[in-house]
Amino acid sequence: MDALNKIRAIVGPQGVVTDPAQMPAYLVDRREYYQGRVAMIVRPRSTAEVARIVQICQQSRIGIVPQGGNTGLCGGATPDASGTQMLLCLSRMNAIREVDPIDFTMTVEAGAILQNVQEAAAAHDLYFPLDLAAKGSCQIGGNLSTNAGGNNVLRYGNARELVLGLEVVLPDGRVWDGLRKLRKDNTGYDLKQLFLGAEGTLGVITAAVLRLFPKPQGVQTAFIAVPDPAAAGRLLRRARAVSGDAVSSFEYLSRLAVELVQEHSPGTRDPLAQTYRHYVLAELSSAGREDHLRSMLENAMEAGLQAGEVLDGVIATSAGQRAELWRIRETVPDAQRSSVKNDVSVPISQVPAFLRAADELVQRVAPGARPCPFGHIGDGNIHYNILRPPGADAVHFRKTAGGRLIEEISRLVMQMGGSFSAEHGIGQLRRDFLLTHKQSSAIDLMRAIKAAVDPAGIMNPGKVI
Amino acid sequence: MDALNKIRAIVGPQGVVTDPAQMPAYLVDRREYYQGRVAMIVRPRSTAEVARIVQICQQSRIGIVPQGGNTGLCGGATPDASGTQMLLCLSRMNAIREVDPIDFTMTVEAGAILQNVQEAAAAHDLYFPLDLAAKGSCQIGGNLSTNAGGNNVLRYGNARELVLGLEVVLPDGRVWDGLRKLRKDNTGYDLKQLFLGAEGTLGVITAAVLRLFPKPQGVQTAFIAVPDPAAAGRLLRRARAVSGDAVSSFEYLSRLAVELVQEHSPGTRDPLAQTYRHYVLAELSSAGREDHLRSMLENAMEAGLQAGEVLDGVIATSAGQRAELWRIRETVPDAQRSSVKNDVSVPISQVPAFLRAADELVQRVAPGARPCPFGHIGDGNIHYNILRPPGADAVHFRKTAGGRLIEEISRLVMQMGGSFSAEHGIGQLRRDFLLTHKQSSAIDLMRAIKAAVDPAGIMNPGKVI
Repeated sequence: MDALNKIRAIVGPQGVVTDPAQMPAYLVDRREYYQGRVAMIVRPRSTAEVARIVQICQQSRIGIVPQGGNTGLCGGATPDASGTQMLLCLSRMNAIREVDPIDFTMTVEAGAILQNVQEAAAAHDLYFPLDLAAKGSCQIGGNLSTNAGGNNVLRYGNARELVLGLEVVLPDGRVWDGLRKLRKDNTGYDLKQLFLGAEGTLGVITAAVLRLFPKPQGVQTAFIAVPDPAAAGRLLRRARAVSGDAVSSFEYLSRLAVELVQEHSPGTRDPLAQTYRHYVLAELSSAGREDHLRSMLENAMEAGLQAGEVLDGVIATSAGQRAELWRIRETVPDAQRSSVKNDVSVPISQVPAFLRAADELVQRVAPGARPCPFGHIGDGNIHYNILRPPGADAVHFRKTAGGRLIEEISRLVMQMGGSFSAEHGIGQLRRDFLLTHKQSSAIDLMRAIKAAVDPAGIMNPGKVI
Repeated sequence: MDALNKIRAIVGPQGVVTDPAQMPAYLVDRREYYQGRVAMIVRPRSTAEVARIVQICQQSRIGIVPQGGNTGLCGGATPDASGTQMLLCLSRMNAIREVDPIDFTMTVEAGAILQNVQEAAAAHDLYFPLDLAAKGSCQIGGNLSTNAGGNNVLRYGNARELVLGLEVVLPDGRVWDGLRKLRKDNTGYDLKQLFLGAEGTLGVITAAVLRLFPKPQGVQTAFIAVPDPAAAGRLLRRARAVSGDAVSSFEYLSRLAVELVQEHSPGTRDPLAQTYRHYVLAELSSAGREDHLRSMLENAMEAGLQAGEVLDGVIATSAGQRAELWRIRETVPDAQRSSVKNDVSVPISQVPAFLRAADELVQRVAPGARPCPFGHIGDGNIHYNILRPPGADAVHFRKTAGGRLIEEISRLVMQMGGSFSAEHGIGQLRRDFLLTHKQSSAIDLMRAIKAAVDPAGIMNPGKVI
């Protein structure tokens, strides 16, 4: 095919993946739900190369699937099975162009790995707060395209809120240079907001200016047993008020989640002497003095105990202890890989009612199945995962009951003013549900924007909209 | 005209302004640059009424100019002179529907006055941080439509960052109900971002869910003389690091700005014993303990003195003193109403170079004219206003030199990676400059979006794009 030869000439032999042994790393998604085929896997080195490639694809109507670290959970970076699409991997464009300590900004290319971005900030005594389990392999371009969330949203916001400027190759091959370092710019529509979270359906993010913050000097972490999720909400409000809004993480763990971690990683100690049904992992961080932060956390927990919001708790007294508490939280996803997964959010005040209703729903739809909720309760974002009944086969359970459980949980959160995909996005996994259930005026707006920006429909076809 | 009669029937006699004495309040902009004429001024009471009105306008191709408190500085809410447009005033839709202390949210209608919104939050021991001089009369719908900035952006962000959900009447008269209380929702494009800052050109914002924060219990305010603007940038970095990022305001004042305030408000005391060329008004705020905040501010100023970033300074020791320091800052705009005005931003690190280059430019273009820069230096946002040469006539100066000064300052900031409208927006005032000078790919994207969302072009015609 002439177009593919032209693209090959642009990127050179190093820029094309042809070794069949390397293919699965690009063509299978992280959860192994999807397996794609492609006409070509191309790895450009520069924005100019991306622009020329997109132009050729535009002329030849070749669908482009952008991919970063391929750690997405909805198949958004996996091509379809037709073998006609082109996978555009950004991993060779991984330069950290600049860290600016006066502007509190970093300019990076899309392929930079999140952990490298964090470390580059830390080397200047600065802080990039986006943090998630895949940080060692996910790439910033993918983080921005999916508006990634993670553990620090409560204090610092989603990926969308951490961006000052973007560079995007548009579907016609032109480059929009929006790499501004400005906190304030009201000259027309905020175009970068279009591409952030669009999962590559409107253009290819090639570089970004990120917001940095002063590096937290003090961090205090507690593992707290609470009587119920409603108490967790009240404790969060108390901790925010007492600490000067220094709560950076507020994560929920059910007892089952802790036990699964213990099964998965033998030797994992229970952080508290007794067992409880509901836990919170709370972290305060500040660039201020450590001891002050500790007393604020102690005050919040003590007052919470008086008010019946806290049953028990421990504050980490060393970096090692802190790491151990976080390891429990971060092992939960791996400890239940075979579960039926829901990444939902509701208003924080609705979390208790949601959990009650969802638990009932599960017993009605799949008696004996075990809900294992955990996650970012401080954002109202619960990973409401469901394990097979004891003794049942995991794959069989997912294939038979999984679809209906996900659909009914999704309907439930929508009835409660929530979101059926809080942070993982749509990709191909949730596209049908989106198109069927989202408000028609919203779908029409999305379609109108897609058609206006990508009239030929070459950008990540079959994803999102 | 049939359409106008239909609209009159929808809103009733109270919903239409017909008294000629009341007209100028709607038809002349705040700076008195523009005078519009209209077919009708309509004041609906509900979203349903707005939707029916927009539908009729859509059918009859009547241009709609949404208006809130009419405090905008770019003529964005002023109709054109044709007499065919309809002014849609949201001020009767001013209910504060709900304050939710667990979700940290408030649901308000577009016509709610900003100060009332702030006070409703405070009544629940919560805080809505958007704050600007017009707060007593500007309305939240206008604040969101213009992505208002103000004094707390450094810590809390622009209006755009303070919104969780929106309700919008679309140009076809349908209502998009996006009134969600969710911190996380990755179900497709973030539609609310389209309407925030669009100045009413894509739809009518009728209600919003706002983000609230814990109420700051401690506030410390200092008036500081710095050797030059570069030192101010270094001092800001120091203060952010020392205080745990508790700097909520960091405002620059030139000596001339202070003197103009003293002329305008006789009796205004100089906050410092000596006079200096450059000042910063810095404020730290936190929900934590007051004394701690004070020692952090003292530490930052003391270390800044050692490092040559600070020449002199005073920390307010009472609420009255604090109010007096802020009064100086907030009187600056009124003290120089007749000046030539530029609302620009550059990266913080570029502020010193910008000020040097702009001062040279002014002397070249209008010898003797006096630059009076002030504003949100912590955001890189400088109100670079220019006074007539001593003895010259203000109106004559603005009419002869004003246009060229604004155009050349705008070009200068763009060369420096800045914005020629940092927080005031485009409206009609800066539309020609935008269309001529902004990157063509950005203009094309804006046009495509406008055409996709408002194909008939009835929403605020002649503004922005």
